[in-house]
Amino acid sequence: MLDISAIYTDLYQLTMAQVYFKTKPKSTAVFDYYFRNNPFNGGYTIFAGLENILDIIENLRFTDTDIDYLKSHGFEADFLEYLRNFRFYGSICSAAEGDIVFPNRPVLQVEGCIMEVQIVETVLLNILNFQTLIATKANRIRHSAGDKVLLDMGLRRAHATGGYYASRAAAIGGFDSTSNVKAAEDFNIPSSGTMAHSFIQSYVDELEAFRDFAEFRPNNCVFLVDTYNTLKSGMPNAITVAKEMESRGRRLFGVRLDSGDLAYLAKRTRKMLDDNGLEYVKIVASNQLDEYVIKSLNEQNAPIDIFGVGTNLVTGKPDAALDGVYKLSEYNGEPRLKLSENIIKVSLPSKKQVYRMIDQNGMFYGADVIGLVSEAVPAGRQEKITQMFHPFDANKNLNLQNFEHEPLLSEVMTNGKRTIEKRTVAEIAEYAKARLALLPEEYKRFQNPHIYKIGLSAKLKNERDRLIAEHTF
Amino acid sequence: MLDISAIYTDLYQLTMAQVYFKTKPKSTAVFDYYFRNNPFNGGYTIFAGLENILDIIENLRFTDTDIDYLKSHGFEADFLEYLRNFRFYGSICSAAEGDIVFPNRPVLQVEGCIMEVQIVETVLLNILNFQTLIATKANRIRHSAGDKVLLDMGLRRAHATGGYYASRAAAIGGFDSTSNVKAAEDFNIPSSGTMAHSFIQSYVDELEAFRDFAEFRPNNCVFLVDTYNTLKSGMPNAITVAKEMESRGRRLFGVRLDSGDLAYLAKRTRKMLDDNGLEYVKIVASNQLDEYVIKSLNEQNAPIDIFGVGTNLVTGKPDAALDGVYKLSEYNGEPRLKLSENIIKVSLPSKKQVYRMIDQNGMFYGADVIGLVSEAVPAGRQEKITQMFHPFDANKNLNLQNFEHEPLLSEVMTNGKRTIEKRTVAEIAEYAKARLALLPEEYKRFQNPHIYKIGLSAKLKNERDRLIAEHTF
Repeated sequence: MLDISAIYTDLYQLTMAQVYFKTKPKSTAVFDYYFRNNPFNGGYTIFAGLENILDIIENLRFTDTDIDYLKSHGFEADFLEYLRNFRFYGSICSAAEGDIVFPNRPVLQVEGCIMEVQIVETVLLNILNFQTLIATKANRIRHSAGDKVLLDMGLRRAHATGGYYASRAAAIGGFDSTSNVKAAEDFNIPSSGTMAHSFIQSYVDELEAFRDFAEFRPNNCVFLVDTYNTLKSGMPNAITVAKEMESRGRRLFGVRLDSGDLAYLAKRTRKMLDDNGLEYVKIVASNQLDEYVIKSLNEQNAPIDIFGVGTNLVTGKPDAALDGVYKLSEYNGEPRLKLSENIIKVSLPSKKQVYRMIDQNGMFYGADVIGLVSEAVPAGRQEKITQMFHPFDANKNLNLQNFEHEPLLSEVMTNGKRTIEKRTVAEIAEYAKARLALLPEEYKRFQNPHIYKIGLSAKLKNERDRLIAEHTF
Repeated sequence: MLDISAIYTDLYQLTMAQVYFKTKPKSTAVFDYYFRNNPFNGGYTIFAGLENILDIIENLRFTDTDIDYLKSHGFEADFLEYLRNFRFYGSICSAAEGDIVFPNRPVLQVEGCIMEVQIVETVLLNILNFQTLIATKANRIRHSAGDKVLLDMGLRRAHATGGYYASRAAAIGGFDSTSNVKAAEDFNIPSSGTMAHSFIQSYVDELEAFRDFAEFRPNNCVFLVDTYNTLKSGMPNAITVAKEMESRGRRLFGVRLDSGDLAYLAKRTRKMLDDNGLEYVKIVASNQLDEYVIKSLNEQNAPIDIFGVGTNLVTGKPDAALDGVYKLSEYNGEPRLKLSENIIKVSLPSKKQVYRMIDQNGMFYGADVIGLVSEAVPAGRQEKITQMFHPFDANKNLNLQNFEHEPLLSEVMTNGKRTIEKRTVAEIAEYAKARLALLPEEYKRFQNPHIYKIGLSAKLKNERDRLIAEHTF
């Protein structure tokens, strides 16, 4: 599934690379990856996909078939020879995977030969945009669910093989397990699942179906109880078999509700279980859940222990995409920016570092400042940036003297080789959780969350404004 | 990219299969694939993904790594040995890929050993739901665009490797080309692309950037003209280079607008080109386009020749998923159905055929009737179904005597081997176009489209109602 060839890119990357190859093959460039809006009208975003991108870029090659294809589509022989030997020799600075990131500040910077940094653009955007979207969606659902268990069960509605990455990102965002066995296997995510209606239907008798299932699925055995009638058939049969299991020293793990009013049915189901001494049997609920439905079910004290979430999670509904972009910020060592009629869409020039302001309690204060890399003094200790400026409103600024500055971008690849150790999905999820604990609650609200401030250092602001002035017509 | 192992499935398929293996390994089952709603509140749906599914299912295997993984997760030795030798030996009846399909009637039926038909469920839903969604979205955009050219350029916002299938489905729905080189290569779709802002920014001078590009991208050369200022910089420079190209016997193919008001800028741009004798230069427009924006631009007579569509196409926004399901309809030759508190969600029992009513002009009348396969007389000529019944409203029925009946499902796989010839994406797209030409316009309207009728034959309705009565509590 990770078999992504370098030709999984946009044609114009290759078209442009050919022109660069012919005119200025030794040129270098720096590109910034960032996005413009937190997805889902939320107050924060969880960065995900970095580990995959490092693996993919390290191994990115054109196959002979790819070269033949391009040859038949007008690319020139010397450039094709270059592509045949292509590999990425550049470097990447990035936020840590699982960190909390915000709009309009660099999340990742790629530096290298302009052909190389251009050719990797599409796959980098493709993987990071999607996983960052889904990790953020998953985390919103986690926020609603509190400490209840969350299962990803969206594979059938995921965007084809994109579902592989959806399950990975869901785990980073805080899901406990996935139904997606391939993702579970490759990313070491706990796998889980219950049973389908078809299993029950393949028996004449629901009771017999439960008995067979209990016999050959003794651990984590969950009965789906709504095939015929939840309260009149599914639950009485489940209770019968649960008691039979008890008599053999086993325990039914749970029952699953997949239709009807989940709050009403969960309360009735809980009572039926408890009345039969089955307090330990858990209630799993599914059916078009998202962060809002789960919030509402919890507010109504629905006694649901485990939520199974599918479509809305893996497709990142309703946004379905993160608006991440990749913009040139330096060319042959010279700053560059992209103008726009809309100041919000003007990009930031030069290589940058992002510092997070940490307050006296060690919490995120709610401001990241972007400075030039050249503002840092050598050996890692940077001068404090004393003031940050609103990127678009010249009248707004903030004094930063009372905060600790945490640099957020660090080198993750040099000369085409990763320079950080591999991290597991579990480690990344833990990191995301730890970082989220430092983000005040007002940024996590679904309705009009507090806006996390992003500002520019004086030097960066002056540099940008100088370049805008140069190009203004 | 097509390397999908059998473990790309939901865990519960394997859990259930193990129970079947232990209790009734010789049992057979029939499952129906269908969906419940046309996506995008539309009046029709284009079926896509069948060719991929046939390839995937024919070759579906568990790898040794997969078996080891499952062994470490509690599956039993004899069942794992079965999985090690697993292949699909069943058969599939299906609508033709590219046909127009509607909710609540079988699009595809899978028949075979219950373990096999269960194990293929997830990947089948995963591929068909997604491609059908995107082909339908693409076709809605095609409907808005009329005979203007449509480019898919969404790869960077697609759901990771799902973008591979998105580009395929877009071509089936009526897109002319894709930026996605991998999909273009594998599916023989025309590839296309222009240039990025970064290309312009890598030059001090926009004019020089255009000159270099024209030199080394002589065919289908398109200049992106909004990097600094479309009308004051991009267009004058594009015109200068277009004239230089003319003097060398070449022609600029087009200019691309990617920001600002596309109708206004296209009109101004067209006039500038025409005033300079560049009537042949085409205008490409992009920037968050979808079927509604394109409709509006066309209504305002924006002189745009080519639309580049990205995010909204490849993510299938706003729906992001088709609600396709896979329901048991027969078990060991006996009819089965899934009940629900909601009659609309009750499934249909037994193996079925779907007939499309064709009117005297050879057009689709607007009704598909679902009958039992047993209603057809041998050798392909079926008895006419004289009447169809509304699936949920007992008072509604329709006389079918005056219509030709076109059977829509046919065998595409037997004993695990495809029985139809491979069709290219271009052939499938042609077929979709031909079928759409038979669908009256009122079903293609975006606002409250006419509802295409789906009905049941008397025999199917009686069979379903008998089974409902048996299970009603």
